[in-house]
Amino acid sequence: MATLPAAVEPIAWLLGTWRGEGRGEYPTIGDFAYVEETTFTCTGKPFVAYSQRTRTPDGEPLHVESGYLRPVGVGLVEAVVAEPIGVVEVYEGRVVGTRLELVSTLVARTPTAKDITGVRRLLRLDDGILHVRLEMEAVGVPMQPHLEAGLRRD
Amino acid sequence: MATLPAAVEPIAWLLGTWRGEGRGEYPTIGDFAYVEETTFTCTGKPFVAYSQRTRTPDGEPLHVESGYLRPVGVGLVEAVVAEPIGVVEVYEGRVVGTRLELVSTLVARTPTAKDITGVRRLLRLDDGILHVRLEMEAVGVPMQPHLEAGLRRD
Repeated sequence: MATLPAAVEPIAWLLGTWRGEGRGEYPTIGDFAYVEETTFTCTGKPFVAYSQRTRTPDGEPLHVESGYLRPVGVGLVEAVVAEPIGVVEVYEGRVVGTRLELVSTLVARTPTAKDITGVRRLLRLDDGILHVRLEMEAVGVPMQPHLEAGLRRD
Repeated sequence: MATLPAAVEPIAWLLGTWRGEGRGEYPTIGDFAYVEETTFTCTGKPFVAYSQRTRTPDGEPLHVESGYLRPVGVGLVEAVVAEPIGVVEVYEGRVVGTRLELVSTLVARTPTAKDITGVRRLLRLDDGILHVRLEMEAVGVPMQPHLEAGLRRD
């Protein structure tokens, strides 16, 4: 890994490859379990690349997404995420210690994409476990829990 | 690689890791040369993941971006791209043979991002060379050539 830029230090606790299990729920679908692999890397420039991949417990591919986190001031983080279902998200976030909360300021979609209109993400490192929580506003359903996982660094 | 979904076949000619050299220009900056590595992969689901990384000829990191291409009908492709400079793009595209043209329908930015307002991308495979051309509308400058590269599959 390249030398860590000072700008990245507030979110350096995210760097690495993380693996673990999660569960999903939403009023319009059944509950489901998944395994997750998420990577945060820094190329030496003042941002962190993010890549997530989930699978069913049997190993079938479920979801992937990728994006970037960019610290822009004391405690402030901007983020962008692209999803293969034809969705992009712009986030503004706040980092305090090892807790990062990202709230979407814009969700944009291709014409055939799912009707996701808002996302909130909470990432929290506590005692070696990266707790990942995602809330979603979609298909007319108000913001509510969708995904929750606990990951360990490789 | 997983079995290729039928939906992906029209853009299967993109799959693989591509490397080569490019040059950049724009009225507001000096001309520059770069080396590029771009990967298109399919996880077995009906989309293609895209990841690009460029460096200076000396090996210093320049740019990265990532996203997804999703065929949605005869000759039609939707795409989304996230860039670490705080930009996301939504594209509608058209594929004919080994030529894919993507035109942004939306560019969204974080508060501190560069003022990019439109992007056109042309990918064309001809005699083993993937020609990549990107035009950009930004900082008040109308759409015009920004990047051009010729890549070979690994």
